[in-house]
Amino acid sequence: MGTVGESEHLVSFAPPRSFATTLKSDLKETFFPEDPFQQFRNEKPGARVKKALQYFVPIFEWLPKYNLQLLRYDLLAGVTITSLAIPQGISYAKLASLPPIIGLYSSFVPPLIYALFGNSKHLAVGTVAACSLLLQSTISDVVSPKDDPALYLHLVFTATFITGVFQTALGFLRLGILVDFLSHSTITGFMGGTAIIICLQQLKGFFGLTHFTTKTDVISVMHAIFKNRKEWKWESAVVGISFLCFLQSTRYVRKRRPKLFWVSAIAPMVTVLVGCLFAYFFHAEDHGIQIVGELKKGINPPSINLLNFDSKYLPTVIKAGVVTSLIALAEGIAIGRSFAILKNEQVDGNKEMIAFGFMNIVGSFTSCYLTTGPFSKTAVNFNAGCRTAMSNIVMAVCMALTLLFLAPVFRYTPLVALSAIIMSAMFGLIDYEAAYHLFKVDKFDFVICMAAFFGVAFVSMDVGLMLSVGLGILRALLYVARPATCKLGKVSSRNTFRDTEQYPGSTNVPGILVLQLGSPIYFANSTYIRERILRWIREEQAISDSEGHTLEHVLLDLTGVTSIDMTGIETLIEVRRSLQVNEIKMVIINPRIKVMEKMMASKFIDIIGKEFVFLCIDDAIEACRFSLHKSKHNDDSPQDSIVA
Amino acid sequence: MGTVGESEHLVSFAPPRSFATTLKSDLKETFFPEDPFQQFRNEKPGARVKKALQYFVPIFEWLPKYNLQLLRYDLLAGVTITSLAIPQGISYAKLASLPPIIGLYSSFVPPLIYALFGNSKHLAVGTVAACSLLLQSTISDVVSPKDDPALYLHLVFTATFITGVFQTALGFLRLGILVDFLSHSTITGFMGGTAIIICLQQLKGFFGLTHFTTKTDVISVMHAIFKNRKEWKWESAVVGISFLCFLQSTRYVRKRRPKLFWVSAIAPMVTVLVGCLFAYFFHAEDHGIQIVGELKKGINPPSINLLNFDSKYLPTVIKAGVVTSLIALAEGIAIGRSFAILKNEQVDGNKEMIAFGFMNIVGSFTSCYLTTGPFSKTAVNFNAGCRTAMSNIVMAVCMALTLLFLAPVFRYTPLVALSAIIMSAMFGLIDYEAAYHLFKVDKFDFVICMAAFFGVAFVSMDVGLMLSVGLGILRALLYVARPATCKLGKVSSRNTFRDTEQYPGSTNVPGILVLQLGSPIYFANSTYIRERILRWIREEQAISDSEGHTLEHVLLDLTGVTSIDMTGIETLIEVRRSLQVNEIKMVIINPRIKVMEKMMASKFIDIIGKEFVFLCIDDAIEACRFSLHKSKHNDDSPQDSIVA
Repeated sequence: MGTVGESEHLVSFAPPRSFATTLKSDLKETFFPEDPFQQFRNEKPGARVKKALQYFVPIFEWLPKYNLQLLRYDLLAGVTITSLAIPQGISYAKLASLPPIIGLYSSFVPPLIYALFGNSKHLAVGTVAACSLLLQSTISDVVSPKDDPALYLHLVFTATFITGVFQTALGFLRLGILVDFLSHSTITGFMGGTAIIICLQQLKGFFGLTHFTTKTDVISVMHAIFKNRKEWKWESAVVGISFLCFLQSTRYVRKRRPKLFWVSAIAPMVTVLVGCLFAYFFHAEDHGIQIVGELKKGINPPSINLLNFDSKYLPTVIKAGVVTSLIALAEGIAIGRSFAILKNEQVDGNKEMIAFGFMNIVGSFTSCYLTTGPFSKTAVNFNAGCRTAMSNIVMAVCMALTLLFLAPVFRYTPLVALSAIIMSAMFGLIDYEAAYHLFKVDKFDFVICMAAFFGVAFVSMDVGLMLSVGLGILRALLYVARPATCKLGKVSSRNTFRDTEQYPGSTNVPGILVLQLGSPIYFANSTYIRERILRWIREEQAISDSEGHTLEHVLLDLTGVTSIDMTGIETLIEVRRSLQVNEIKMVIINPRIKVMEKMMASKFIDIIGKEFVFLCIDDAIEACRFSLHKSKHNDDSPQDSIVA
Repeated sequence: MGTVGESEHLVSFAPPRSFATTLKSDLKETFFPEDPFQQFRNEKPGARVKKALQYFVPIFEWLPKYNLQLLRYDLLAGVTITSLAIPQGISYAKLASLPPIIGLYSSFVPPLIYALFGNSKHLAVGTVAACSLLLQSTISDVVSPKDDPALYLHLVFTATFITGVFQTALGFLRLGILVDFLSHSTITGFMGGTAIIICLQQLKGFFGLTHFTTKTDVISVMHAIFKNRKEWKWESAVVGISFLCFLQSTRYVRKRRPKLFWVSAIAPMVTVLVGCLFAYFFHAEDHGIQIVGELKKGINPPSINLLNFDSKYLPTVIKAGVVTSLIALAEGIAIGRSFAILKNEQVDGNKEMIAFGFMNIVGSFTSCYLTTGPFSKTAVNFNAGCRTAMSNIVMAVCMALTLLFLAPVFRYTPLVALSAIIMSAMFGLIDYEAAYHLFKVDKFDFVICMAAFFGVAFVSMDVGLMLSVGLGILRALLYVARPATCKLGKVSSRNTFRDTEQYPGSTNVPGILVLQLGSPIYFANSTYIRERILRWIREEQAISDSEGHTLEHVLLDLTGVTSIDMTGIETLIEVRRSLQVNEIKMVIINPRIKVMEKMMASKFIDIIGKEFVFLCIDDAIEACRFSLHKSKHNDDSPQDSIVA
């Protein structure tokens, strides 16, 4: 076997790198894949401090370069998103069973904080429907928002505080990796399911019901609606349907003419204003159309003294905070990234987490509840031509003015108008096309998506989410447990070996079986890999026997194997032992750096012999053929076919 | 780019296989990797039924070929393991706080069942220390074996029944994959930790204590021993240490002279007999040396009527049954396989599960508790020269004779002799060398092992186990979340591209960056992969700039990527978009069959263009160089270095 003498010297048998080196490189890949400190490396100390400050507080980077030209764009975008923020703020606060004014407060302080720390240029800060409902459904398990609204409100602030702390911690610990496990399929299904249940919840407002269920699943909600048929008010329903038709038609306009996006952007504000006028002049309340009610003038009062860490409620509050923080992060970061990609900019997930965290911590001190980067608002911000996070500051200023002077105007907003606004927003979140695309491309992704959708719609929001994430993790584990192996053949016109199933024209070298192993080789799949290799060999032996030659060499191509553990190495030793009994030689091809290091450390290379390790398949085949020849000559067997 | 015209035709753009085909192949790889039905395929119906029967009940395969020659070997082995089964049976029953006779019963019925269904030739059936203690510590949480021994016994039978049902179900559902997640490192640590706590428990017997703790962790046990210092009996300790020295010296003999293995195999029996004689003649009981006490004559009474499914205890019993069944399976299957490999035979894990399951179900009906294939007994069986499962039948017959005629003899066995036997067996399970080897080769494996060891020793057996398995799963997830990518360079004397870190001599082609991506490309790592690719490109651009040429092509080698999902494909599209902005072209090399199918289904190939997909790196580089040349000529730049 040692005849193609120089070939084995090509293989690098360098001694393993030190533990410190590999640990450092592993930690870097795990926590700092984008190498954030690279920019500081070649700087002087003074410049380094400045760069570090700009790195952690991005406003210092863009504000000095800011000019009037940019302000013009941001001003327009800021005013546009304010007109969306007011109706959405009131609506989502109602969805979370909070006083409507809290929704307005939440569009004042958090955008200011985000403008300081956030690194997305297009993200518009605000409350979101899914998290509002999730907060409501979790916290109302322990305190009813009707019976004890003050305590309920304090617990929501506390949950927001916990969300902020958790998000900040994730960012500092660089655990953006956790958010990665919320896949696109999970989010699609979760959003769809949430949209369905939120729409159904709005039927309460549409029909002007006063009795309703606190549960969120489809069946309970439908039951509650039909049980209270006597309370149905046709006036309310007529008004609601009119508003909904108006809102949907503006969406249709936007879809047909993207330039007219502002029509749908200001439509909710128009709805609210028309609703107010209508309610004011027609005394809507007397006709069974409920209105929002009193809204106090003045900006956010402090709420830091209201945080409630009573051990009786703490577990629920922590649960609410942690789950909503993950969903808020997943939504906010994903949206920030999608728009950044459109402009070929980068958004650092870990820094975004810190920005979101600060924004929610400060928010919880100033009477705001959970905020993130909602899709609708961000899209409007982007379309309105925002250039920097200044648009968030503009929105905050407009909102402050509204709170100081205009808040009482909105007291006449009919609840049914808010329901129409929420419903219309929710229709946009049900992404049939994405689900169909998943179905076409990847059935397992589709199942993950549907698990989230049906779980949310028919059981509860957290069950749906966990089910879907659990399936995603199961899939990842299954992937690790069953890595794809294949048999390689030579592609005719090239000196290249490829999967014989994919390239049916590729040819075998008689007496030699080339297998490509999948990655990783691991305790969780070592049994499988052994069984699979032995099966390949049995099948190959059957073919060899029928063609009248014998299988003498098995080549294991490890090019694709990036990781191996102790059990994996033992498995290879066992495979070799099984092969030896059948007088088959095992050859290893191109172990990669980490695999080679383990093989050196565990003496595996010494056991199999360096002359059985090759850099590429060609070299190995040449060496094997030579030894085939020799053994044939020794046997005096006159077979010629072995030289294919 | 289309200039090397024929090269892209080499790439197989076959339309994706149908969903049914891929699903069938995936299910086969997941559940039937060893292709068990292959042997039936080319048979006539009659022969097929016979083969199927032999497949499911292996005794039909080997019994017809059985002869006196084989019986001679199996008889010797069977008698030898009986001599081990009697003292071990009594000892482990004590460890599980059960009447000692149950331990003897457990070596009669289960071996008979295993002989029918088992497919390992060397496995000897019996009770094991770890599972005995685990059963005891779990069930004594709800019922004290002292206060209500009858109920405790019934719950143990019920747990054994559940173990059997669970194991059978796993086997029929072909879920051997679950056992795969108990890694070798976990088992090493778990066994070591268990051995430590079992040894400490034996100090109770050594010192003849009557008051003791029911907890298993090191601290509670040490505390219990020293708290009851007044109860210490020196006579008992002297006898115990003598026995222990005797047993350890026979182990030493076996280690030095493997031929004399039978010395250590019969040593426990000798210990018991000497102990009995000693206790009988010296009235040991009067000197503070406790004895086993009454053992009734007669074979196993039925216990099917004793199973207790009271909902008060059921959760605990199910927990005990499921956890012990997994550990018993992991131990039994691993041991069966290790010895099969020595003889180059195969053991089918799923069939073993069914055999173990049947054995425990029938066992629970006939007054036996949990049995599996213990290491010590199996090793003795193998060394004594057993040839088939007949040795288990011989053991069962010997045990029946013992139960019918000799049981009362063992009533005088001193408890301290049993403690010495258990301790001596446990010393063998602490595998320092394996742990040190793990430390040398793989630090993470070592941590997994230590987590099991310290978890078991200082907290509790199930916590240690879960902690260790959890770390193993975390590692698998981290593997999926951070696949290894690397930059490839051309190895000088071969037309081959390899990792530049591993082969520092390899050279770049100016203007072209070749990256090898790790597998899989997945929702859980798509962010990482994008960041990582962009970082490679930034670094390469810095190098290119310093050397005075520009990066124009990025080649992504997908040879090692066996799986991709929707999010992964979207990531590649995003990477391409980022590259386009920098006027860099993205080229895909050798997508494997599953990846190509997804790329076709999702129209990814249409988006990037078939001319940007190549079969091998060479082809791609040739095409890229041509386009580099062209663009350079167009620019009229006189640089020559681009042709490396």
